[in-house]
Amino acid sequence: MKLKYAIIGAGAIGGYYGGRLAHAGNEVHFLFHSEYDYVKIHGLQVDSVMGDFSVSPINAYKSTSDMPACDVVIVALKSTQNIHLKEMLAPLLHENSVVVLIQNGLGLEEELSAVYPDTTIMGGMAFICSSRVGQGHIAHIDYGPLTVGVHQHPQEHLLSQMKTDFERAKVPLFIAPDLKVARWKKLVWNIPYNGLTVALDTATDVIMKTSSSRQLVKDMMEEVLAGARACGAVIEHEFVNNMLEMTDKMKPYSPSMKLDFDNGRQMEIRAIYSNPIRMAKQNGFYMQKVEMLEQQLLFIQSEMDKKNSKNMRS
Amino acid sequence: MKLKYAIIGAGAIGGYYGGRLAHAGNEVHFLFHSEYDYVKIHGLQVDSVMGDFSVSPINAYKSTSDMPACDVVIVALKSTQNIHLKEMLAPLLHENSVVVLIQNGLGLEEELSAVYPDTTIMGGMAFICSSRVGQGHIAHIDYGPLTVGVHQHPQEHLLSQMKTDFERAKVPLFIAPDLKVARWKKLVWNIPYNGLTVALDTATDVIMKTSSSRQLVKDMMEEVLAGARACGAVIEHEFVNNMLEMTDKMKPYSPSMKLDFDNGRQMEIRAIYSNPIRMAKQNGFYMQKVEMLEQQLLFIQSEMDKKNSKNMRS
Repeated sequence: MKLKYAIIGAGAIGGYYGGRLAHAGNEVHFLFHSEYDYVKIHGLQVDSVMGDFSVSPINAYKSTSDMPACDVVIVALKSTQNIHLKEMLAPLLHENSVVVLIQNGLGLEEELSAVYPDTTIMGGMAFICSSRVGQGHIAHIDYGPLTVGVHQHPQEHLLSQMKTDFERAKVPLFIAPDLKVARWKKLVWNIPYNGLTVALDTATDVIMKTSSSRQLVKDMMEEVLAGARACGAVIEHEFVNNMLEMTDKMKPYSPSMKLDFDNGRQMEIRAIYSNPIRMAKQNGFYMQKVEMLEQQLLFIQSEMDKKNSKNMRS
Repeated sequence: MKLKYAIIGAGAIGGYYGGRLAHAGNEVHFLFHSEYDYVKIHGLQVDSVMGDFSVSPINAYKSTSDMPACDVVIVALKSTQNIHLKEMLAPLLHENSVVVLIQNGLGLEEELSAVYPDTTIMGGMAFICSSRVGQGHIAHIDYGPLTVGVHQHPQEHLLSQMKTDFERAKVPLFIAPDLKVARWKKLVWNIPYNGLTVALDTATDVIMKTSSSRQLVKDMMEEVLAGARACGAVIEHEFVNNMLEMTDKMKPYSPSMKLDFDNGRQMEIRAIYSNPIRMAKQNGFYMQKVEMLEQQLLFIQSEMDKKNSKNMRS
């Protein structure tokens, strides 16, 4: 069986994984937005630590309504775009399609499940340093494994074929036994660092070297663990220390939300903060400091929106 | 009985109250720092909504060791200066002196009591809009009442004389029956607005008009009420709504901590945040969002300190 892939959102993450799959000989269809005209002519270029490559010609589209139905639909859009997802996905799905949401945060699979209750839905977490450096041009700086987990309607055979395809394309694919635990584990890091680098307008290393903010990170990680536990996702306390130690060893780093903030883009507040806070509350745990960070981020986003709308008017 | 007054810290607050007392004919001795040479020649000028006046010549000093012992010693320094207070006060105190700390925050009278256990110590809360607009020059924009309360060793007769002196000098003086309740009540406003205008780099009106930050203010006020209650200072819940409504009606306002932040000065984090948090914790209540704001402010102060020390080196 040959799987047909669709990549929705061919940026730093989607472009990399889709590029790897296409370069390895798989049939991959890419949805582009502003870059469509460029990549249609020049293809996609990936400068990778593992060796540069390009995909040219490329199956590029401006709208999913022009794309064929695919077996595996990889969504690598920012979650702030998910309001359009129902409409965008409709032309791409056949009876046995799998949708994989490679996105940050929590609750996104549940939202999609409400509109596509019979479709196989998976979540994906990328462990990668890559960035878009120009039109149709991605720089892959480090790492690359992808972890996926099933949200609903597992398809064992298709998943095993996906694993083969990805690994032939030089992407290690791990299958998480419990998507919920995997998502909450990722939040243990994402919740403190994404928001605090924005709220304190700084980078991870400065946060770690200042005792008050280091303690705040630890407090928030412990809140996330308690929230996760309330939701039935048990994570060992040792994981907090592991995350702190890992971050100590990292180079100064700006998480994706900080990059969004610095570039005046919408921040993924709902998926990374509001959904986990609500879910934990519904299960009886109130993540107070996490909620305060959400409240501050919503304020900051509101100020950014005002500024953007002023710029548009002037 | 004629009371002899000392004003320690003759800025926007101390300069105004001391100026009023001197202008009304009381004997007032002022400690100045950088402004000493100027006021020695030109005196103190107060531009007041209630009519301008000046104090010239003025009893101005550079050091408390040159000042006479006084009956009422009014301390209107920033609380960040209180480490010097023991030494500064020594020459000013006689057996029956009263020290009045017109300062923000909590725990300052307790700290002073540890070094002057036998002295009458009071706390004062100014309800005033005034600012230092130049050397020896204060602008009094609005309000003016002073509320005082006794921390230890009440002296009824002296307090009643003080009230007479202040009111003859056009300063309404209220005597709070319980200093602890009065201090916590002031914190209900000071804790959210001082810190959040710094952390969000904004003014009170923007905070109030944005739903997420307005809710955060309310959450923090409710935490302060719970912290106060744990410490034995019972404040009615209605007070939260009163403070919110009052702030809605205020003009855009930068609290003192925001002014300190904007001017690169030390922020009063210890008195306004660390002390109340510690006291509430000792009495069994954990003010989580208030603590998170403290942690953020300590981070911000640490970044300011780094910047200041760089400027000093360059």
